[in-house]
Amino acid sequence: MDIKTAEKTYRDYMRRLRAYSHAMGVMTYDKVTAAPRGAEARVSESLEVLNEASYRIEMSKELSDAVDLLYDRREELDPKTKREIEVYRRGIDYVRSIPEDEYIAYMALTNEASDVWRRAKEENDFASFLPYLQKIFDTNRKFALYYKPDCDPYDTLLDFYERGLTSARCDAFFGRLKEELIPLIARVSAAEPIDDGFMHARFPVETQRKLSDYLMEVMAIDRGRCAIGETEHPFTENFGKNDVRITTHYYEDDLTDSMYSVVHEGGHALYELGSGDEYEGTVIAGGASMAMHETVSRFYENIVGRSEYFCRLIFPRVYELFPDVFSGVTAEQFYRACNVSAPSLIRTAADELTYPLHIIVRYEIERDMIAEKYTAAQIPEVWRRKYKEYLGVDVPDDTRGVLQDSHWSGGSVGYFPTYALGSAYGAQIYSVMSREFDVGEAIMTGSTARINGWLGEHIFRHGAMYDPDTLFKMCTGEEFSPEYYISYLKEKYSRLYALK
Amino acid sequence: MDIKTAEKTYRDYMRRLRAYSHAMGVMTYDKVTAAPRGAEARVSESLEVLNEASYRIEMSKELSDAVDLLYDRREELDPKTKREIEVYRRGIDYVRSIPEDEYIAYMALTNEASDVWRRAKEENDFASFLPYLQKIFDTNRKFALYYKPDCDPYDTLLDFYERGLTSARCDAFFGRLKEELIPLIARVSAAEPIDDGFMHARFPVETQRKLSDYLMEVMAIDRGRCAIGETEHPFTENFGKNDVRITTHYYEDDLTDSMYSVVHEGGHALYELGSGDEYEGTVIAGGASMAMHETVSRFYENIVGRSEYFCRLIFPRVYELFPDVFSGVTAEQFYRACNVSAPSLIRTAADELTYPLHIIVRYEIERDMIAEKYTAAQIPEVWRRKYKEYLGVDVPDDTRGVLQDSHWSGGSVGYFPTYALGSAYGAQIYSVMSREFDVGEAIMTGSTARINGWLGEHIFRHGAMYDPDTLFKMCTGEEFSPEYYISYLKEKYSRLYALK
Repeated sequence: MDIKTAEKTYRDYMRRLRAYSHAMGVMTYDKVTAAPRGAEARVSESLEVLNEASYRIEMSKELSDAVDLLYDRREELDPKTKREIEVYRRGIDYVRSIPEDEYIAYMALTNEASDVWRRAKEENDFASFLPYLQKIFDTNRKFALYYKPDCDPYDTLLDFYERGLTSARCDAFFGRLKEELIPLIARVSAAEPIDDGFMHARFPVETQRKLSDYLMEVMAIDRGRCAIGETEHPFTENFGKNDVRITTHYYEDDLTDSMYSVVHEGGHALYELGSGDEYEGTVIAGGASMAMHETVSRFYENIVGRSEYFCRLIFPRVYELFPDVFSGVTAEQFYRACNVSAPSLIRTAADELTYPLHIIVRYEIERDMIAEKYTAAQIPEVWRRKYKEYLGVDVPDDTRGVLQDSHWSGGSVGYFPTYALGSAYGAQIYSVMSREFDVGEAIMTGSTARINGWLGEHIFRHGAMYDPDTLFKMCTGEEFSPEYYISYLKEKYSRLYALK
Repeated sequence: MDIKTAEKTYRDYMRRLRAYSHAMGVMTYDKVTAAPRGAEARVSESLEVLNEASYRIEMSKELSDAVDLLYDRREELDPKTKREIEVYRRGIDYVRSIPEDEYIAYMALTNEASDVWRRAKEENDFASFLPYLQKIFDTNRKFALYYKPDCDPYDTLLDFYERGLTSARCDAFFGRLKEELIPLIARVSAAEPIDDGFMHARFPVETQRKLSDYLMEVMAIDRGRCAIGETEHPFTENFGKNDVRITTHYYEDDLTDSMYSVVHEGGHALYELGSGDEYEGTVIAGGASMAMHETVSRFYENIVGRSEYFCRLIFPRVYELFPDVFSGVTAEQFYRACNVSAPSLIRTAADELTYPLHIIVRYEIERDMIAEKYTAAQIPEVWRRKYKEYLGVDVPDDTRGVLQDSHWSGGSVGYFPTYALGSAYGAQIYSVMSREFDVGEAIMTGSTARINGWLGEHIFRHGAMYDPDTLFKMCTGEEFSPEYYISYLKEKYSRLYALK
């Protein structure tokens, strides 16, 4: 095979694989947004068929040969194609390292585990989920060792989700956070609480939908390429840069939950929408990594969205939509109410300050499970102990404890740290951005367009052309340091809670 | 291959093919309900890939051999499997009779033609669509002759959509309709018009959504297995009997449009939801034919939904939702307003009485095009002439003329007659049902459950176990006669318009 033929073969296969992942993505999205409950069994069956067909295409010798040839001769390729091959090969190298029957069995396991987990969570029945959880950790460990026999398996898993991440880096980062945040949280908890009584009201779903439209407009999200749906848990999905979906969940008794879901997922959407046209349809399209994606989404949610500027900007519209609720309330009171902090049980409902501690609990458990320091049966107890120690809260049951997240049941081990890393990246980027222009003033002019432009230029347009480390340094001109994040949180919450 | 192996092979292939058609169906549904506009190009690409993959699976020698063996030895099979093989083989026999390159080229042609048609309709530009339309008619003719060289090609096409239907049967049926309905329509047009002035009001979409929920409740549609979406044109889709979707379109200035879309599509849904469990996942699941499906949907829409009983049943809720509009209006006035009849240009907006004439125009054009009596370039002129002759209306442009329907652009030639046949079937079934119980009284008790039960027993549960002719005779105990339909329309409209 010559290099031209190999490239053509690679592109033909990518086109086919893209169609399968597109179809499976849409079916999954449809299942949680539009389908009736009855759809589930058939969807599982169809996903199984398509997943296997896609796996067979991906594992075909013709594609493997083409990719290997292109990889060996990658210095002859243009930079974009070279990067595509590097990124793609990294993905299949992992899959190719695993015996076929084990890989297929693992797909079936996680499929089943997701259903078992859902029921276990509903019924607070950790015992039923336990054997699956143990098997998922064991398999992740085994697969990591297949892929890189000489590497620490948890490092391999971290690197899989976030190129270049290691447990040494995580330990250093999370160590600093614990040092600073645990005492800060304790001081905030002891301070005079923020009055958010006016937020305990009814917010009709139809009106909240109008607020979502307004927020997407404020964020300058192109609705011709981005739709919004409603799901149990909010998320962002995309099928190329011209078809991005965000979802939210409306609660009649809570305004900020959906509001900040829309802003958070809207951030993910802006990243996908801003990916370079030249990468469309390739493995380079979209975000550089999970952590870079969380960097962007948390930047919009917290640094922008929970800022006083943003709250002042949107308050007139919020007031107009819910005049009875906000009669007599000032924009500043609204801002403060959007930033109430209190240790809690549920990660996804946590405020900006306590959030990273939820991640640290999960990180430490993952790391120690992969190191076989304990077994899955011990996780609930470890979970309780760490929540008490870091956040001072008592975990009353596993539903609000170890069973709350879907990640492990879906097979994602090594993914959680990217959430916290993203917040810290964002604080550093905010500091760099602020040297160039007044971010608050930019927000007050009526939309986040200037911020979108800056992030678009420095991050979005590059897709996955660079490893996240490299991109972060290109963007900030610096090495990563957690100190920006710590300063940002200290300053914000000291002011909000008038800490001395 | 022995018969057991052949059956296993057949079932394995069916499972795979089901997954592909499921995926393509969901992507198409998602595209028109939830996706942003930007999704289109990628969806087309993915559908092309999956369509071709599915075609390759369907045409594989292994499946062909298994099906042929099972067909040859069908007398050894249980009745259900025997029927499956007969139905499935009929479908692939058609596809197998067409040279592969021509079949694939035709799929591409209709794909492209759909886009060209959409633009042509928007811009009233028949000329741009003309070459596609000619090619579609030519190809349908050619394919029909590949499949059955000795048959009249239009009869082959009719039979394809409605087993047993011929142009001789259509000519006889439509001839009677023209004889009776053209003068009846003229008399109605000359009569004192029904006062429906109160219907010219604003009906907020949020409130109409509540009415849809209520109508689905009245029709006893299981929402755990049937969801409702919003699209430009209403339709029903299903992915098995546990995942049925209906759609509607809300117009702020028109209440009955969406109301009767929901009732019509709700009828299709009930048919799918009522298909026998034992057929689930096979080619026998779902409706017996297109005409039987339209029989059911039009039965609910017109015979049930536009009856005085149904209008009286739902009026209190309609009143409650739109109190300002219906203040001072009686249930009888509401019923009459739901049944205004007037010759018009657009098939989908036509009333119950004038509707069949719209079909006759299309039928006659299809039949004569396949007989090569004229070319596609002449269709607009023929269209205008027939609309004037049958309905007395002048067609001002092709957008409201030949370009209004999507069917031909999608390659469906021979499909239109099933719409009118369904209405006539329904009237005869209504007559038979009325001998068993008082249908009006059943509706007045609060839901259509008793009607659902009767149709479920006689039609729904059988799926496609019987050819539509056979099923119709089983259900009514009689041969089909258009006279029931003619009497029904004469009686209803004579009373509504006080004709002498």
